[in-house]
Amino acid sequence: MTADDRPHRYAYLGPRGTFTEAALLTLPGAAEAEHLPLATVPAVLEALRLGEADTAVVALENSVEGSVPTTLDELATGEPLHIVGEIHLPVSFALLVRPGTTLADIKTVASHPIAQPQCRHWLLGNVPDAEWRAATSNAEAAQHVADGHYDAALAGSFAAARYGLTVLADDIHDVADAVTRFVVLHRPCPPPTPTGMDRTTIVAFIGEDHPGALLEILTEFSVRGINLTLIQSRPTGAGLGSYLFWMDFEGHVADARVAEALMALRRICADVRFVGSYPRADRVRPEIRRGTHDNDFTEAAAWLHSIRTGLR
Amino acid sequence: MTADDRPHRYAYLGPRGTFTEAALLTLPGAAEAEHLPLATVPAVLEALRLGEADTAVVALENSVEGSVPTTLDELATGEPLHIVGEIHLPVSFALLVRPGTTLADIKTVASHPIAQPQCRHWLLGNVPDAEWRAATSNAEAAQHVADGHYDAALAGSFAAARYGLTVLADDIHDVADAVTRFVVLHRPCPPPTPTGMDRTTIVAFIGEDHPGALLEILTEFSVRGINLTLIQSRPTGAGLGSYLFWMDFEGHVADARVAEALMALRRICADVRFVGSYPRADRVRPEIRRGTHDNDFTEAAAWLHSIRTGLR
Amino acid sequence: MTADDRPHRYAYLGPRGTFTEAALLTLPGAAEAEHLPLATVPAVLEALRLGEADTAVVALENSVEGSVPTTLDELATGEPLHIVGEIHLPVSFALLVRPGTTLADIKTVASHPIAQPQCRHWLLGNVPDAEWRAATSNAEAAQHVADGHYDAALAGSFAAARYGLTVLADDIHDVADAVTRFVVLHRPCPPPTPTGMDRTTIVAFIGEDHPGALLEILTEFSVRGINLTLIQSRPTGAGLGSYLFWMDFEGHVADARVAEALMALRRICADVRFVGSYPRADRVRPEIRRGTHDNDFTEAAAWLHSIRTGLR
Amino acid sequence: MTADDRPHRYAYLGPRGTFTEAALLTLPGAAEAEHLPLATVPAVLEALRLGEADTAVVALENSVEGSVPTTLDELATGEPLHIVGEIHLPVSFALLVRPGTTLADIKTVASHPIAQPQCRHWLLGNVPDAEWRAATSNAEAAQHVADGHYDAALAGSFAAARYGLTVLADDIHDVADAVTRFVVLHRPCPPPTPTGMDRTTIVAFIGEDHPGALLEILTEFSVRGINLTLIQSRPTGAGLGSYLFWMDFEGHVADARVAEALMALRRICADVRFVGSYPRADRVRPEIRRGTHDNDFTEAAAWLHSIRTGLR
Repeated sequence: MTADDRPHRYAYLGPRGTFTEAALLTLPGAAEAEHLPLATVPAVLEALRLGEADTAVVALENSVEGSVPTTLDELATGEPLHIVGEIHLPVSFALLVRPGTTLADIKTVASHPIAQPQCRHWLLGNVPDAEWRAATSNAEAAQHVADGHYDAALAGSFAAARYGLTVLADDIHDVADAVTRFVVLHRPCPPPTPTGMDRTTIVAFIGEDHPGALLEILTEFSVRGINLTLIQSRPTGAGLGSYLFWMDFEGHVADARVAEALMALRRICADVRFVGSYPRADRVRPEIRRGTHDNDFTEAAAWLHSIRTGLR
Repeated sequence: MTADDRPHRYAYLGPRGTFTEAALLTLPGAAEAEHLPLATVPAVLEALRLGEADTAVVALENSVEGSVPTTLDELATGEPLHIVGEIHLPVSFALLVRPGTTLADIKTVASHPIAQPQCRHWLLGNVPDAEWRAATSNAEAAQHVADGHYDAALAGSFAAARYGLTVLADDIHDVADAVTRFVVLHRPCPPPTPTGMDRTTIVAFIGEDHPGALLEILTEFSVRGINLTLIQSRPTGAGLGSYLFWMDFEGHVADARVAEALMALRRICADVRFVGSYPRADRVRPEIRRGTHDNDFTEAAAWLHSIRTGLR
Repeated sequence: MTADDRPHRYAYLGPRGTFTEAALLTLPGAAEAEHLPLATVPAVLEALRLGEADTAVVALENSVEGSVPTTLDELATGEPLHIVGEIHLPVSFALLVRPGTTLADIKTVASHPIAQPQCRHWLLGNVPDAEWRAATSNAEAAQHVADGHYDAALAGSFAAARYGLTVLADDIHDVADAVTRFVVLHRPCPPPTPTGMDRTTIVAFIGEDHPGALLEILTEFSVRGINLTLIQSRPTGAGLGSYLFWMDFEGHVADARVAEALMALRRICADVRFVGSYPRADRVRPEIRRGTHDNDFTEAAAWLHSIRTGLR
Repeated sequence: MTADDRPHRYAYLGPRGTFTEAALLTLPGAAEAEHLPLATVPAVLEALRLGEADTAVVALENSVEGSVPTTLDELATGEPLHIVGEIHLPVSFALLVRPGTTLADIKTVASHPIAQPQCRHWLLGNVPDAEWRAATSNAEAAQHVADGHYDAALAGSFAAARYGLTVLADDIHDVADAVTRFVVLHRPCPPPTPTGMDRTTIVAFIGEDHPGALLEILTEFSVRGINLTLIQSRPTGAGLGSYLFWMDFEGHVADARVAEALMALRRICADVRFVGSYPRADRVRPEIRRGTHDNDFTEAAAWLHSIRTGLR
């Protein structure tokens, strides 16, 4: 994607010190690449669209808080981008304070709105009287604490050093084994080579006047033995009751069963957007149901040909 | 199908004077062709298979008595033949007697077993004390009457002259508008050109251990907007509960929606036999559901190609 | 069902010596009861309806030849009767001849039309030149042989002595393990007590103008985990394409899942006829799917009550 | 709900001046009632649970931004509360500034995170260089502007007077006809009387190991002709891929078709929570499908009774 003598450029939700940066750093070679921390998810995606970055990394869903609406909406309705990979990162917050602050001193705790509910019970149990304050990112929350506006910030412990703060409590999360899923994005391109452990993402737009549409869509997956791993409805903006469905499912667009299901959706939906086929971070291999291997499709096509030409 | 200087040869269920002969005579040129009236449906089909006939005509179903088991079983499991056309013939029986016989004289009435239930109420109302006797064909029943074995026969009125009998009552049938459907058969061949008013026949074999199979099969038709016009289960001979399904449905194997449904059945069933795509005798044009025109399939395939190659 | 001093009366398809009589004799006490062998299935059922018999026994389906159309149609559309039990009898024919006849002497073989296809291959292999002749019952065929009209009859070996014939070949059947299923009928009555190994029979009538009806019906069974054991479409007589469906399925009308499915069919079909819930002859116990035990229905009803009354 | 001499107490998301307060004021008598503006949705719901309020009003979904995760999660998994009504309020923001500020002066715009995306294009077109800042509520954003921390706030125009600000631009929204849906909550209680134009809300919890569960659930609605108006998946917190489904659909728990569907879900889901049946704000009357009226259920139950007792 890059000229020989130019480092790969990664856009992501900044500032430095966010969980997104931590996710990005798990990619091979990312540490040595050029980093573009940007203030909002739309800004990150726009940098990729405009060619100012080669790759973008943004959070898509969180096992506690659910999908990230802005990411879904941008990828569903903005100028198209493709998911080419995903990263799963355990969720764990630290309570960052200025040196010397104790739990008893904390009157305000700042964080990105997504962090607050994941630590709600911990906060209630440990700083019951503290008020929560919204910040545009966890890193910004840390900056506010450093500046003295708030008493504490929920952020990754790796952010402490950057802002001159100390970690008063670590490994904070209400739910064990919480995970955030990030996606790696490119401008539209051929999908990565299938690995046998792939996921595909699409967005299906439903015509307004068709209430049974979701059942129809799920049936198209079901008859071809394809399991969904995420389904998320989002308003299209055309009034309450008009939705699009973000869908992640097992398999790769190179698989015959996935290809036929996609074509079926293309035929029955108002519109379908392909968002990508890419290796699963959890390396789960799907169970392929009787009659849905590529070989089954190939054999059936040969049989159809023999019928149409009168050979049987 | 025939050499230039040889008349076309039609095999059908005889003897001369059956309803099948009457159906056959509705085909263009059939009156001048060579006729092979044979004693049983299996014999008719075997003559076609062996090349002793060019075309066979047999009854498939009757709007009163239902499908004809022997025809279904032979076409489902015998050496393959293809349906290339169909004929609908109104059902109406005559009561044939020796000259001089009156209703009061009739103690026995003979017919093919399929004719008896279609005239049951008429018989009860008009010759309540007569006993019914089975014959191998209606024409054979007429012969038995001519020979003096029985008093009356249920047959087509056109059979009277041939056997020296008179028509004591005509237009006998318990149900108004009853119709028999005959099929025109060839040895395996390319299907006739689609007319837009076609029917397709297949036989689906279900693996023994799979009780939900029929629902699966119907779902494959339903998701592609294909209406069934006949479904008939028949035992495969492998024990009570092991079935094959004879299915007639709207459309032609040249239609994309039909082709994809057939391939799906091929993938999920133990076996599928294609029996033919052919013009409907009733010239009903199917309603083609949103998203199931050939154009929709073509557009979806182009879209899939663009995805797989990274063009969107 | 009978007055104290009167023997139980069984109507069945006679004459004496039929397979139906053999089936009947497997019932406890049937040997000592009064027997009414009658000439046709409709006559047998009419005797029961009129109170001339207490119980009727007729063949319903055969693992080779499929369902018996007359029985299905009479039970589906005649004055209602209820199935209260079933009998499975292995199918095996004997070739009955006059003493002294050899295979080489046989020019004609008579039988009920249902017997012929079950012995077709045996006949072809052993008496290839013999012609088949239809008889109204296998026992009548034996009588014809005794009278010298035909050379051989296919019937149960138990019929030989009654007609002064000898068994030239026994255990004739094209398909191993073939079974005929007979049903035991009463006038409408409360169903027999559930045994946990029961079958239920209904007839569903489809409104003419509703092509997806069968899929709807099967879905009602599927959502409640009920397996069908027989589905048979039959014309209603109202034109090609208008059908009723005979359906046998696992479970008893006393089971909650069966009751709810029946009510659903009652709501969505043009009409539904209940034909009976009765113990299975093969004593197969159904697998009851998650969430479909009677206890699950009871718990759900209690939950609903609590919601409607505001208790949760 | 209240003692005779005590005013009705409404808890809602404050501070005073929020859209939620505007929604609340559309309720009859609400203007004269006691108001408890609270800082967070959980605090509002907790006040209701503890009896400190008689009724709570919170936002549930927005036709642009989708459902409000905190409201959904609290109602789905917190101590149960019931929806007894809903309010639809058109979405329209004003840009509030300190007197004298012009568009050219604006470097920062604050708002609740849900307001920002609804005005994104307007902001880009009118104050392209302004940075957005998160606030805990739109009213808090206004307070920040009044305090001089930020230059402008997106909030309801009704909030201007309260904070000494002026309206620089009004009727700001990217999407025409945007609507926010608020719900009116009580502690668990009998549902309001059906109006024929009702909506029901439930939460269905899916067992982790059952990927086809959503298709099963939608089928239970579909077979009873019930249209969904909102479906929203949310993580249960038990790992990526474990979901609950928030579902709004047409009808009232007092309707037989709704009651039976709810019982079915109760049987097949890991758990189901009833959240309420209540009049629709848009007064849409559902189309009731053939066979799903209460009368159809009553007739079917009477029919079942007659079968079970042997009356037919």
